[in-house]
Amino acid sequence: MTTPDRTANIPEVVEEIRQLFERYETALVEKDVGVLDDTFWRSPHTIRYAMHENGYGFDEIHRHRTARPPGPGLKGARRRLEILTLGRDFASVNLEFQVRDRDIVGRQSQTWVRFPDLGWKVVSAHVSTVNPEPLW
Amino acid sequence: MTTPDRTANIPEVVEEIRQLFERYETALVEKDVGVLDDTFWRSPHTIRYAMHENGYGFDEIHRHRTARPPGPGLKGARRRLEILTLGRDFASVNLEFQVRDRDIVGRQSQTWVRFPDLGWKVVSAHVSTVNPEPLW
Repeated sequence: MTTPDRTANIPEVVEEIRQLFERYETALVEKDVGVLDDTFWRSPHTIRYAMHENGYGFDEIHRHRTARPPGPGLKGARRRLEILTLGRDFASVNLEFQVRDRDIVGRQSQTWVRFPDLGWKVVSAHVSTVNPEPLW
Repeated sequence: MTTPDRTANIPEVVEEIRQLFERYETALVEKDVGVLDDTFWRSPHTIRYAMHENGYGFDEIHRHRTARPPGPGLKGARRRLEILTLGRDFASVNLEFQVRDRDIVGRQSQTWVRFPDLGWKVVSAHVSTVNPEPLW
């Protein structure tokens, strides 16, 4: 058994993920469901916790996408984008952003895995806002 | 180059993650900062988006933990726990839960990677609530 490569942020791997992430973000604004679907792993195990609902499995995630109201979505300016890759088959993308026209901070997390037959796919995603009031 | 193993949910790998996850959950309730710290990758790349703040890097995450008010935390009953492992080195854990004493649904996502020298570590985590009102 060879030791797996866990090198952080190999530049060409980060660049691959950056391009896939930007393609996805453009597709969100344009509501290009083909690209959105192509980005996510077509599996019942795929999960997407969105702002207003929890999507379990590719089919439910797809239904939430097509039910979304038209328009550019709720993302305003980006505050911070962090891409972490470990080796050549794993990536985590975290974006902190301003909610459009609101004084609210949003966060988006994606977990990407490279499959030998499928290429890079998101297997888990989570979008939310920072809670302004303490829940304690 | 060998083809990487992406077999979903090999039972003994799922069991490893389940035990590590439960250890972490117990440590959250007991505020056992040693276990909480041990669970997360000790790296400036580690990110934890929490209910009320965004933690970038292990040190900031640690500071947020020690600043947290005492008490059992905000988690009430579990609604759904999903563990996905792919091969033997990658896992995603997603928990949907009731916020304690509130009519609010919470979500917790963790991305685990196995490092040859460190074992399993969380490299990215995200905790939030479902937004009750539309942000559109």
